[in-house]
Amino acid sequence: MLPAAEPPATEARGHIALVGAGPGARDLLTLRAAQRLREADVIFYDRLVDPALLHLARTGARRVYVGKEVGRNAWPQAHIDRLIVAEARKGRRVVRLKSGDPSVFGRAAEEIAAARAAGIEPEIVPGITAASAAAAAIRVPLTERGETDCFAVTTGLCRPGDPAPDRSLLARPGTALAIYMGIGKAAEIEAAMLAAGAPAECPVDIVSCVSTGRERHASATLASLSETLRREALPGPAILFLRHPKSLSGRRAGGASRAA
Amino acid sequence: MLPAAEPPATEARGHIALVGAGPGARDLLTLRAAQRLREADVIFYDRLVDPALLHLARTGARRVYVGKEVGRNAWPQAHIDRLIVAEARKGRRVVRLKSGDPSVFGRAAEEIAAARAAGIEPEIVPGITAASAAAAAIRVPLTERGETDCFAVTTGLCRPGDPAPDRSLLARPGTALAIYMGIGKAAEIEAAMLAAGAPAECPVDIVSCVSTGRERHASATLASLSETLRREALPGPAILFLRHPKSLSGRRAGGASRAA
Repeated sequence: MLPAAEPPATEARGHIALVGAGPGARDLLTLRAAQRLREADVIFYDRLVDPALLHLARTGARRVYVGKEVGRNAWPQAHIDRLIVAEARKGRRVVRLKSGDPSVFGRAAEEIAAARAAGIEPEIVPGITAASAAAAAIRVPLTERGETDCFAVTTGLCRPGDPAPDRSLLARPGTALAIYMGIGKAAEIEAAMLAAGAPAECPVDIVSCVSTGRERHASATLASLSETLRREALPGPAILFLRHPKSLSGRRAGGASRAA
Repeated sequence: MLPAAEPPATEARGHIALVGAGPGARDLLTLRAAQRLREADVIFYDRLVDPALLHLARTGARRVYVGKEVGRNAWPQAHIDRLIVAEARKGRRVVRLKSGDPSVFGRAAEEIAAARAAGIEPEIVPGITAASAAAAAIRVPLTERGETDCFAVTTGLCRPGDPAPDRSLLARPGTALAIYMGIGKAAEIEAAMLAAGAPAECPVDIVSCVSTGRERHASATLASLSETLRREALPGPAILFLRHPKSLSGRRAGGASRAA
């Protein structure tokens, strides 16, 4: 294979992989993600990705920080999309390394669309999402037989102008809910969920900087969520993990919840 | 350290790790999970775990198949719990290797409780859950900015006697839903969701044996889900991945969905 300065995209298309870096800890990367990093010519990485992961790449690989800060737009998404595609069209193997799982609040749809518009079908390498790592860290499963049969992830932050996500889910017995990027909206979330009928006693765990050396954990109930966050001053990123176990409503109703 | 035939649990406690094996592909294991397999003295593994993963273990490590079949009870959960704890109490490093993520429909709560009852705090190593791998395989994210702001996992199968999980979630615009173990209940799920107000046109993807050599994929709408499954005869395990994007309801309401 001869190196070509600017090969036509139809002749020597590169490869684009959106790769999940996992929640933080280096060893929560998958073997496939590690392999893609080793093969990469250029890696675009996020603010929340541990830079130590980049040591897996070849010495000659380019590493480009596209550090998206929550609520800032130093690197607008459309600019990142263009950069990724431009590198791939030079025939390079591009890795877009994203914290967590690219499919969960990862702006993957835009990057997939940009790649396809350039005639490249991207590969997605899934990653451990923060909710899964948080559940593992505190040893509280996301689902529990007979207690929670539905587990949902949603977000505290939305696109400006979009309505807030549904806050009534927790009112249903049997639901567990992980909220990403929710710390700044905790008071609002707590009030909306209580108003929607979720029991005040619903257990809540807050797991901050999950799987990193700075990991912290606090427990609360729905009614004490925002007060607990104020007191504990847990830094983001954090997962709010709320549960409405069936037995909680059973106890509230007088205890005989399992009488067919 | 002298080997003791049956050391007191308080003296030489072993280690119990519930380890996520990921959705099927060997290289979707995390580095940490691979490490735990290498360190294990005994590994209890499931029906859906790729036996090739066991090659990571030491030659002398015991491998015990506790193959739970859906709907069968050859290895009742309580029996598995007892075995794990008994091995750990001998001072051994026990890995309970579970397909997917131990925290998602993995019966982890029972095994955590059993370990704690024996005075052992278990470790949980998260794994890639099938919904995440399915989304990656078909390149359709679990959440999409402006389209789906809530993603839920639920199940087709419940404990005998338990009520079916809520089937009304998909009625809300902005929701994506992955149903595990849903193939056998697809007709029931389709009818219940339509009855609850979910649009017939909601896109549905069925991903069978995700990330394995036998992976298959079919697309449908909510209204054609059970018919598509009959026609395509996709084998389990499979993920039903249903979506109600906001723009779908916008189009139904006449198109002007984004007018604040």
